Amino acid sequence: MSELIIWTYDWVPKGPRGFVREEAALPYTVRTVPFDGREINHLAHQPFGQVPFLSDGELQIFESGAGVLHLARKTDELMPRDPVGEAHTLQWAIAALNSIEMVSVPWWFLKMSGKEDNGLAGWMGLRLQQLERVLSEREWLVTNRFTAADLLMADVLRVSEVRSFGDRPATEAHVTRATNRPAFKKAYADQMAHFEAADAQRA
Amino acid sequence: MSELIIWTYDWVPKGPRGFVREEAALPYTVRTVPFDGREINHLAHQPFGQVPFLSDGELQIFESGAGVLHLARKTDELMPRDPVGEAHTLQWAIAALNSIEMVSVPWWFLKMSGKEDNGLAGWMGLRLQQLERVLSEREWLVTNRFTAADLLMADVLRVSEVRSFGDRPATEAHVTRATNRPAFKKAYADQMAHFEAADAQRA
Repeated sequence: MSELIIWTYDWVPKGPRGFVREEAALPYTVRTVPFDGREINHLAHQPFGQVPFLSDGELQIFESGAGVLHLARKTDELMPRDPVGEAHTLQWAIAALNSIEMVSVPWWFLKMSGKEDNGLAGWMGLRLQQLERVLSEREWLVTNRFTAADLLMADVLRVSEVRSFGDRPATEAHVTRATNRPAFKKAYADQMAHFEAADAQRA
Repeated sequence: MSELIIWTYDWVPKGPRGFVREEAALPYTVRTVPFDGREINHLAHQPFGQVPFLSDGELQIFESGAGVLHLARKTDELMPRDPVGEAHTLQWAIAALNSIEMVSVPWWFLKMSGKEDNGLAGWMGLRLQQLERVLSEREWLVTNRFTAADLLMADVLRVSEVRSFGDRPATEAHVTRATNRPAFKKAYADQMAHFEAADAQRA
């Protein structure tokens, strides 16, 4: 098997810190690029200066959604192997990254910029309500099992400002189910430890 | 081969009208759902009330990005068949749908709402400039050939308000290359004819 490396920053400011996932149940190591100078210090690997990106042997791949789908196709843990299950996992993964995150992240960005009149609030409410109806009828997005689509959707929805925007019990239950999984808890704890160690070093 | 159906609206208002793609070189038919009542009339097929969605035999799939990637994997026309080419097509397809469209569509939405102070303009300028540098060094996004990633990226970038935001010659050349392809021209002409016929019927 090729060596899997997940690249992240050596340190990030306190606040919403990301996490590395364990769900694929594949062995991996973590390496870092410096947070300071991130706009230009790894453009050869990631043209938008972001993390994470992935090395899988000789292959390098950026965009966390693409990384998750790439890993999902290497293992049974994150994607059913039948054509319909695979197509629907792709469909809901893209829904998380496009139909939902396209609204929630810019809405959050405007909110953090201190805009009183957030011009995206109406659209945000509509999309989240449409998703609430879907999640009120099923436990997971695809074929009654946790998939890469749930991983990506829960990652979009677990942002605290998104969770506190409106009252959507089925969505809240989905986020809780996903983040209570042992793989999420381990990945989250590992990542927090990584950044806390970096805090100590910068202090 | 299973029957491929692309579903769209029976009519849409004049303005930015969409298009159906020919690039996959697979036979397909077009069917419609009514534009009037679109918020609720096809939720069983598309939970956000949008189009297009796809029927591929018994399989139904929504999210245009997922539909394009699904078709790309059925044919050689839109995706190289080697693992690296496939991973990089996925990566740049997700970059179009997430890193770029996540900024350009909300920016466009605020602009169309008549906001003088568009809080997303700075982010928009940064992302488009990062992409301009990539496109200034290559003709197509993946391995010197047109792929699903170029199709999706050009679709995000060809919006007239996006094209007239700043001066990015390499990006403009990419959009021109993609939209000058015979498959794009045929798909665009077919779709315009579809909606013009619908205009006449509603007149």
